[in-house]
Amino acid sequence: MITPEDRLRELGIELPAAPSPLGSYVPCVQSGSLLFLSGMLPLRQGKLTRTGRVGEALSLAEAQEDAKQAAINALSILKGQIGNLARIVKCVKVTGYVASADDFMEQPKVLNAASDLLHDVFGDRGKHARVVVGVPVLPLNSPLEIEFIFEITEKAAAD
Amino acid sequence: MITPEDRLRELGIELPAAPSPLGSYVPCVQSGSLLFLSGMLPLRQGKLTRTGRVGEALSLAEAQEDAKQAAINALSILKGQIGNLARIVKCVKVTGYVASADDFMEQPKVLNAASDLLHDVFGDRGKHARVVVGVPVLPLNSPLEIEFIFEITEKAAAD
Amino acid sequence: MITPEDRLRELGIELPAAPSPLGSYVPCVQSGSLLFLSGMLPLRQGKLTRTGRVGEALSLAEAQEDAKQAAINALSILKGQIGNLARIVKCVKVTGYVASADDFMEQPKVLNAASDLLHDVFGDRGKHARVVVGVPVLPLNSPLEIEFIFEITEKAAAD
Repeated sequence: MITPEDRLRELGIELPAAPSPLGSYVPCVQSGSLLFLSGMLPLRQGKLTRTGRVGEALSLAEAQEDAKQAAINALSILKGQIGNLARIVKCVKVTGYVASADDFMEQPKVLNAASDLLHDVFGDRGKHARVVVGVPVLPLNSPLEIEFIFEITEKAAAD
Repeated sequence: MITPEDRLRELGIELPAAPSPLGSYVPCVQSGSLLFLSGMLPLRQGKLTRTGRVGEALSLAEAQEDAKQAAINALSILKGQIGNLARIVKCVKVTGYVASADDFMEQPKVLNAASDLLHDVFGDRGKHARVVVGVPVLPLNSPLEIEFIFEITEKAAAD
Repeated sequence: MITPEDRLRELGIELPAAPSPLGSYVPCVQSGSLLFLSGMLPLRQGKLTRTGRVGEALSLAEAQEDAKQAAINALSILKGQIGNLARIVKCVKVTGYVASADDFMEQPKVLNAASDLLHDVFGDRGKHARVVVGVPVLPLNSPLEIEFIFEITEKAAAD
């Protein structure tokens, strides 16, 4: 039985310490079997590697790296919250906000890097509904922010 | 007993084939009794009829046509997912993102075309909570994108 | 036992009549134990005190007053819907949309005024997941709009 943690190891991804929220809120709230995560920024060691609008201050490829980082940060929150990623029943929804140059309209390609990671780690359980929009500016001048809703179970889904 | 499918026929609306997602995600995910739909674009036969910002590249009336089309596309996803629209218990929430000229602030009127369709098809079950915002740019340069959450039941709600 | 209504009194906050929705939708929909509220504008007696973008037409401090007002309006909707605010089990998620000057990136500080009010009124039950983004323009040229999801129980949570 391959666990999500196994898959992360195979992908060479080490989960960072969960990033701290920027204000008076919490990274994750559970209601019933749903886990609602706060908007994730692509922080690395607490800092943004890049700022500004995609298609202007950074390229599609750079934005994809950042989308993947935001998803990794979400997994670190999840891991901290539920201990065992095999408790994830499914990824329910991903909402991506991409700080976009006025003529940049490839937001879905940016978010694919996050969606693909979820699929790589969780397999079919990682398939989610998705909303992606462009915005003019984000907190800390981040190039993107991603929100996640997961469904969990009390026991590891593989049990 | 008038079914939602009856109402669609009376309204002269034929549900199209469900539009394909633009990336590595799925059109719809169920968690418990909730169905989360991906952001719907006003695609017709897989293409946008109009692009650009409302109040600039297209008028309020045109944007309303597109909002209705996005809602029709949502119904086609629903129909494909649950087979029988009478299984809809209620429309829970609609979130509308309208690509807006800087001085365009009638986003609620745009979304009314989607809200009205839901009410026409589902009656009081179609009354939803709603969030509507302006954005600078959307995937494919779409003038709008709408996200839907529905509550469903195992059996047709009319049973 | 201090109730949320007691706390509101101590804070000198009187809940206004619930603001009316701007279109063909409802202020609040319940699905299971979740209450989904429509996007709240900082209306006072049905009108916006300020319009335009934060960091341009209004200051951070003014935007914080408006964020607090939007949260107060949410509480008035809640009170109207469930009668007794002690039925709130928790605030699940807050999504804030801040009409932002192109160089304004302190959206989290704006939203803190809403988050802090929820904590003041509900204590630890008020701690929520949060998403905050900048947008170019909002309905009625509002400087911000905030969406809320709450979890409720049939009986007062204190029972």
